[in-house]
Amino acid sequence: MTEPDDDLIPSVFARECASRAVLADVTGRWGTLALAALHEGAYRFNALRRRVDGVSEKMLAQTLQALERDGLVRREVQATIPPHVEYSLTEMGERVAAKLVELIELVEGEVGRVRVAQARYDQAR
Amino acid sequence: MTEPDDDLIPSVFARECASRAVLADVTGRWGTLALAALHEGAYRFNALRRRVDGVSEKMLAQTLQALERDGLVRREVQATIPPHVEYSLTEMGERVAAKLVELIELVEGEVGRVRVAQARYDQAR
Repeated sequence: MTEPDDDLIPSVFARECASRAVLADVTGRWGTLALAALHEGAYRFNALRRRVDGVSEKMLAQTLQALERDGLVRREVQATIPPHVEYSLTEMGERVAAKLVELIELVEGEVGRVRVAQARYDQAR
Repeated sequence: MTEPDDDLIPSVFARECASRAVLADVTGRWGTLALAALHEGAYRFNALRRRVDGVSEKMLAQTLQALERDGLVRREVQATIPPHVEYSLTEMGERVAAKLVELIELVEGEVGRVRVAQARYDQAR
């Protein structure tokens, strides 16, 4: 691993560019869904886990940690008894999540056409 | 696996919804980069492989096959000697890729701030 050069323009097409790793966090299997869920509002860990149907406790914890490290997600421990941990988006996280939600809405809206294409593809083989 | 119910509104948050699988194809490690590259124009396989720096032949072939099956990518064999195979986006693929490119440009533009956040996070631990 070479250190990325700050003088270069970031490009996800370059293997070593830091932007590719950030894109991977954001578009990862659980990263996308966690960000999209937090776009609805702040969540406690267990509620977020129920919203992101199918994610394991371990994977969600890892995903949130990576997004917190990237400065996209804020983790706040509330001074309640017992203490609650709440996750929300930072300003930068809001902008990324908003774009992801647009992508998700596009995919959800096209899923009927995709399934037709898949059936046609499978029949031709 | 239960068959998705056509009467339900698609939601990527539901584990079994077909839209989640499509989202996974589109936001997968190589799916995102392949779609973003094809947004620049049609590519032959080897040129696309050079553009998507770091992808193996096998992974790129699998990625393109999934995207073709989803109706996002068109594969055309040109009647040249030797025959060339060219990949391009369908109309639906164009719309998905355009949204991905917006996301990529956002991430590339924020990578400086992300690296600052990462350094701060790592120092605090």
